[in-house]
Amino acid sequence: MRAYDIIKKKRNGHVLARGELASFLNGYLKGEIPDYQVSAFLMAVFLKGMTAEETMALTGIMLSSGAAVDLSDIPGPKVDKHSTGGIGDKVSLILAPLAASAGVKVPMMSGRGLGHTGGTLDKLESIPGFKTGLSIKEFKKVLSEVGCAMIGASEEIAPLDRKLYALRDATATVESIPLITSSIMSKKLSEGINGLVLDVKLGSGAFMKDLDSARELATSMVQMGNSFGVKTIAAITDMDQPLGMAIGNSLEVIESIDAMEGKGPEDLMEVTFYLGALMLKVANIEADIKAGKKRLKQLIDNGSALRKFKEMVEMQGGNPEIIKRSTLLPHSCLSVDIFSKKSGYIRAMNAEAIGTASMILGAGRERMDSIIDHSAGILLKKKTGDFMGKNEIICTFFTNDEEAVDKAREVFHGAITLGENPPEKNKMIIEVIE
Amino acid sequence: MRAYDIIKKKRNGHVLARGELASFLNGYLKGEIPDYQVSAFLMAVFLKGMTAEETMALTGIMLSSGAAVDLSDIPGPKVDKHSTGGIGDKVSLILAPLAASAGVKVPMMSGRGLGHTGGTLDKLESIPGFKTGLSIKEFKKVLSEVGCAMIGASEEIAPLDRKLYALRDATATVESIPLITSSIMSKKLSEGINGLVLDVKLGSGAFMKDLDSARELATSMVQMGNSFGVKTIAAITDMDQPLGMAIGNSLEVIESIDAMEGKGPEDLMEVTFYLGALMLKVANIEADIKAGKKRLKQLIDNGSALRKFKEMVEMQGGNPEIIKRSTLLPHSCLSVDIFSKKSGYIRAMNAEAIGTASMILGAGRERMDSIIDHSAGILLKKKTGDFMGKNEIICTFFTNDEEAVDKAREVFHGAITLGENPPEKNKMIIEVIE
Repeated sequence: MRAYDIIKKKRNGHVLARGELASFLNGYLKGEIPDYQVSAFLMAVFLKGMTAEETMALTGIMLSSGAAVDLSDIPGPKVDKHSTGGIGDKVSLILAPLAASAGVKVPMMSGRGLGHTGGTLDKLESIPGFKTGLSIKEFKKVLSEVGCAMIGASEEIAPLDRKLYALRDATATVESIPLITSSIMSKKLSEGINGLVLDVKLGSGAFMKDLDSARELATSMVQMGNSFGVKTIAAITDMDQPLGMAIGNSLEVIESIDAMEGKGPEDLMEVTFYLGALMLKVANIEADIKAGKKRLKQLIDNGSALRKFKEMVEMQGGNPEIIKRSTLLPHSCLSVDIFSKKSGYIRAMNAEAIGTASMILGAGRERMDSIIDHSAGILLKKKTGDFMGKNEIICTFFTNDEEAVDKAREVFHGAITLGENPPEKNKMIIEVIE
Repeated sequence: MRAYDIIKKKRNGHVLARGELASFLNGYLKGEIPDYQVSAFLMAVFLKGMTAEETMALTGIMLSSGAAVDLSDIPGPKVDKHSTGGIGDKVSLILAPLAASAGVKVPMMSGRGLGHTGGTLDKLESIPGFKTGLSIKEFKKVLSEVGCAMIGASEEIAPLDRKLYALRDATATVESIPLITSSIMSKKLSEGINGLVLDVKLGSGAFMKDLDSARELATSMVQMGNSFGVKTIAAITDMDQPLGMAIGNSLEVIESIDAMEGKGPEDLMEVTFYLGALMLKVANIEADIKAGKKRLKQLIDNGSALRKFKEMVEMQGGNPEIIKRSTLLPHSCLSVDIFSKKSGYIRAMNAEAIGTASMILGAGRERMDSIIDHSAGILLKKKTGDFMGKNEIICTFFTNDEEAVDKAREVFHGAITLGENPPEKNKMIIEVIE
């Protein structure tokens, strides 16, 4: 079938066979089919959807476009956690060493942040010396000695996804459930894991703005993982306001260390412990969520998680002294307190807008080739439900770009809704799909 | 607004402002916006549609991307006819001289054929010496002296449409009502005409396969023409089987000459006279259709139309001797009679499939850069409703490519449906929209 006919078939809402998808997409990877035909196809997929079978075929094609990591020589359950992305989401930094200290092997391959969301790689790279570009051999060595290792996806992992993602990013075809599912799952299924916990974010700071879409994406990914033989569970968690108090790379590393010292903010810890308990369940270490959470709290309290984190940082070339002396992390020249203009209860903090304010301060990338400032970001002093006096400090901006402050302040103020009464509290863990 | 946001807005089904469309499409014409963003946009337009206002803005942008022909110094009503394309549709070749002989000035700019449909330019170019690439000055001279002139759209006419059409053709985004409307109308509105008759083909050989779509396209184009100050009427006509008996370039020229000699097949003449009467109406020469048709028949019978045709051929460099001696036209080395396998009444002749058979024999282009054989084609001996004996000749193939015959025969047989009774006869003129 010609490329034209494949586009037309999807445009007409028909189901493509595995062979049709494979010839089209492998032709694209080889450079035989041009970008402009593939972008028309992606828009047709965006608007007409794909069946579960098509999504599975697509995932398989992306997976087999590259190499897979073989972890079969490392003993123990290999379980990863992946988040669909949010603001202030530093859970991976805490959870990888925490789950490792409970006996799980956590081989985590992460991406960089784009737009208002942050990326785990950028956070790790704010640690002086930390190498995220380990070879697979080095990665396996860290994983087997420490129990967790955190790197960027190598060039060999799902190269078709890399090429398609760049095109989706330029053609407004990112937020499609079959396309997100195949993109995430092809990378995760290349990691050599036997279990996977997915954190599907829901709310103003997430791709998924409504429960139905979040549920659909979670179900799609869970089905995909399980049908490829990886035990997969998804939790839908709240991303209607930033998670924790810190947004921005080195600020989030500091908050993560605080969390591993037992001083983490409540919402962050609730999500971390819940997802961790799901990892223990998937790893067959602790079937019961309550027991799992209890065990993980102990591993924070007795310092195990933090020790693992220190070991990992050290083995990956980072300076472990940052744990005791946060001033060794990049810090900005400017800090600007932001004051409330009125008084009232905070009824909402639009997470996407706060992410954008943080990006403006230098913490995020507007485009894939933007350079980020690891020290920039926002430290919240208040969260949704808190009462604000007039002229009270609502947050502090950190930046090296004085000119960005006014614009960021305007965006930040636009993100806050005040009212006479506090809103009902959002549940952090909204739903579990397995 | 960034290109990305314009794609996203259309993807979400929202209405784009004229300025948004203009910056996006002019950016494309200037090479500032890449093909792959525009093809995603075209697919979003295909699937989400456009309002009448958006289509009008799009048409205006395409129109003003190029030059317009100024015919204000040529006296008399300037009226063109345009068909959305079909199989065996040689009406333009007969109608341009016929309407000219009734006092209409017919400045006809046509396109080439692609796929199963033929193009008027290709038919004209089968006449030895005939030049379709006249300058605008030469074109106006022929128009003013003969009353009709037929050329290809020059490079300066709607260059944005040219660029967009090539992209649509590669990305399965051709059959979209707003995109067809703006493409056809931007070219026609550049011709300097004051009246336009549109022939919207309906049936197995047409873009539009159902009456609702045909009606929608006709209404969209009529509104567009009238709002740009060109009096526009559309007729929806039958294209469920080929028009006339001849399909293929020089074969259709011969049938057109026969028609101007008063020996044309009934279906072809019915459509020609009806569309001609609409042209006279638009030109304010004869308000009544019946009177218009009568007048046109006389102009065939007294030889006026054929004389005009001869004058035009001669002034455009073609050999006028072809009118008396059709053997001066390109003729194929091979002619192969095709026999019916069974007996019965012909209930349907799928026009698209017959067009494809003719293309296989060499008469059409599979791609824009394919070379066509002007002598190739099909001469039908039977039409829908006729009775076929077993082993009776149903048509004759003309080709220079012996190897194409078997494939074309198979496609042709697949196009024919036989039955025990004749079907009800289709009306040729289905509906008029003004």
